Amino acid sequence: MRKLVYDIAMSLDGFIARADGSVDGLLAEGDHVTDFMNRLGAYDTVLMGRATYEWGYRFGLTPGALAYPHMQHHVFSRTLRFDDSPVHVVSDDEIGAVERLKQQDGGDIYLCGGGAFAGFLLDNRLVDQVVVKLSPVLLGGGVRLFGASRAAVELTTVESKRYDNGVLLLRYDVSYTGATPRRRTLAEVLAG
Amino acid sequence: MRKLVYDIAMSLDGFIARADGSVDGLLAEGDHVTDFMNRLGAYDTVLMGRATYEWGYRFGLTPGALAYPHMQHHVFSRTLRFDDSPVHVVSDDEIGAVERLKQQDGGDIYLCGGGAFAGFLLDNRLVDQVVVKLSPVLLGGGVRLFGASRAAVELTTVESKRYDNGVLLLRYDVSYTGATPRRRTLAEVLAG
Repeated sequence: MRKLVYDIAMSLDGFIARADGSVDGLLAEGDHVTDFMNRLGAYDTVLMGRATYEWGYRFGLTPGALAYPHMQHHVFSRTLRFDDSPVHVVSDDEIGAVERLKQQDGGDIYLCGGGAFAGFLLDNRLVDQVVVKLSPVLLGGGVRLFGASRAAVELTTVESKRYDNGVLLLRYDVSYTGATPRRRTLAEVLAG
Repeated sequence: MRKLVYDIAMSLDGFIARADGSVDGLLAEGDHVTDFMNRLGAYDTVLMGRATYEWGYRFGLTPGALAYPHMQHHVFSRTLRFDDSPVHVVSDDEIGAVERLKQQDGGDIYLCGGGAFAGFLLDNRLVDQVVVKLSPVLLGGGVRLFGASRAAVELTTVESKRYDNGVLLLRYDVSYTGATPRRRTLAEVLAG
């Protein structure tokens, strides 16, 4: 069974982006980026919510195109439609779709975001590992690591690494033992 | 000028306690506690908000008594009154009181919490260092590191240490250059 790995930059106060989606407060240069790029090379599949996919448009992504050319893309949305696109849009049975992907052969699956979608997956016990690139900054508000999820979950520290620029890489396994998340549908999450 | 150091346990998702003030999700045993006790021994003065002081009552603290016998206590509250107590209650000019304490001779000052009070001090550029004991857990909600503060602030990583139990000690210097916090009064914070 392959792991679903949420690999994400975050501020010390737990935000992965400002409220408008911008991430300019989080360090985007340095050796931690080189390591991130190397990890990206090892993921063969990427999952993301619609808003995260469309966020790529700001940086030149064309609707329907692959954000990461070497990865199989699964974008979760009830409204998005692409004709003749390599991007697979998951528009129903989101939980089943993720479970089936995890059962396929292959490497770890990259959960790209965003927070609301990651929270939905956490609530449904589908996130296996969290890799946080912790930037030395307080954003003071914005998008939380797991959106509006209220799930209380224990973690096991697997790896920690400090870079010269002050960024810390923290890797945790997620343990759902004892957790009592409420299973929510993606529609509930997006309506919330 | 002595430093005001906010030395606090936190979950990966940025919470220092559950909404009811309990901290049972954060690891309270291990070598990181020994190190914390050693740091406590070096602080000669402690600042805290009223709620944090009264939170000690749950653990046997008597109203008006010292929570940390070797430290000078300054509890910030507009309503608290103690007769014949070694605890100094700061009931007005909170910013001036903190500025004067920092100008006195002595060691670093311990900011014990809670989140709302720490956020007020951050908004007023009074917190010099943040020492986070990062527990491997997601709490999913509760009291944020700096309460309702919206201050965006840059940090400089000074120290990081990983313990066998998965806790990480992270020490940051706070840099207010470029930050544009709104200066709020404590009354505004407590009313919010």
